Amino acid sequence: MLRALVFDLYGTLLDIGSLRERLAAVAPDARAFVDTWRAKQLSYAFASSLMDRYADFDELTAHAFDYAVATHDAKVSPEARATLINAWSRMPAYADVVPAVAALRVRGVALGVLSNGTPRALEQTLSAAKIRSHFDAVLSVDTVRVYKPSPAVYQLAVDRFGGSREQIGFVSSNGWDATGAAEFGLTVFWCNRSGAPAETFGAKPAHTIRSLADIAAYL
Amino acid sequence: MLRALVFDLYGTLLDIGSLRERLAAVAPDARAFVDTWRAKQLSYAFASSLMDRYADFDELTAHAFDYAVATHDAKVSPEARATLINAWSRMPAYADVVPAVAALRVRGVALGVLSNGTPRALEQTLSAAKIRSHFDAVLSVDTVRVYKPSPAVYQLAVDRFGGSREQIGFVSSNGWDATGAAEFGLTVFWCNRSGAPAETFGAKPAHTIRSLADIAAYL
Repeated sequence: MLRALVFDLYGTLLDIGSLRERLAAVAPDARAFVDTWRAKQLSYAFASSLMDRYADFDELTAHAFDYAVATHDAKVSPEARATLINAWSRMPAYADVVPAVAALRVRGVALGVLSNGTPRALEQTLSAAKIRSHFDAVLSVDTVRVYKPSPAVYQLAVDRFGGSREQIGFVSSNGWDATGAAEFGLTVFWCNRSGAPAETFGAKPAHTIRSLADIAAYL
Repeated sequence: MLRALVFDLYGTLLDIGSLRERLAAVAPDARAFVDTWRAKQLSYAFASSLMDRYADFDELTAHAFDYAVATHDAKVSPEARATLINAWSRMPAYADVVPAVAALRVRGVALGVLSNGTPRALEQTLSAAKIRSHFDAVLSVDTVRVYKPSPAVYQLAVDRFGGSREQIGFVSSNGWDATGAAEFGLTVFWCNRSGAPAETFGAKPAHTIRSLADIAAYL
């Protein structure tokens, strides 16, 4: 029996694809821009941890935005830059989030968020998406100054909710995050909304689901 | 004055784009296939180090190939799979490599290779590309079981050639590798053959060049 369910935030609870609409005004291929932005943000997170040169996710998100601007030759004024980077903290929740977490709460499972974002950004972002009140705890990598998929990050969930590693359920749509949590020993739900190929390296998630609504069936 | 010049291998001395020709028979969009293969190979290298779950580069290259096959819905027989993965060890050197390293040797600079590849793969690959004899040392991350851009990797160059960090020149076409080596304190030449955007996070390379032929002018 799981003591708690802990959710990744970006791409799992919140729809990163929603940024495309906001980028359309400055980048002709908004999809490619958002893909570059997100890939570089994660690449900088990985690299900063490997280099022992931690910088917080707000800073990396801004650096990655500037890289995407250069890559796609976008025209962005300083004001538009600030607005667009801030859009990262104003993404809507996927439609399945509120019904799924409400149903899980009714069953008495503790709920948490565990994200690369800074504590301040996480609070702002969850409030803007109107889902903050559903979660008992919001955990940030910033407290250990290393990014996912470091074991030190997943340990935060065990420290907060107690019990053994496998008694903590972890839900992520990001394949590398699901792998990292499974390597650490959490009970992982990989939420593969888009039908992406499975990761071929590392520990496998315990469960692969297509929507957060599928979690309850495994409890 | 530099005591040694140490080169990254894949993408710096060897042309990863050459794989496209070999992939054309199995993937309709060979460019996209190679891009996925390479991106996943690096992502697995970063993630495996962050997860404390080292697996060697041959293994990660094969896993990343399988991921690219699934992503691009390629049809690959077991025999073709082995041949295509092996192609990673049979990439040609860029045309500027032999003239540039020959000119540097004449000046009496020690030369090395520092790569994510396994020692065995590095020897095979450099021999197949007919450039092994130009280098005094071939250094692999496998001896420290962590991938670039970890400082432990760049330390291998200092251990081998001696002197201070800034007395070792490091040449890479990979922006994240140039950043990692610069953070560590090597004197970095970023060989930006394709006119890619500069990295926006971390320490900057000392020099940006367009061809390996440009190095000599800085000595």
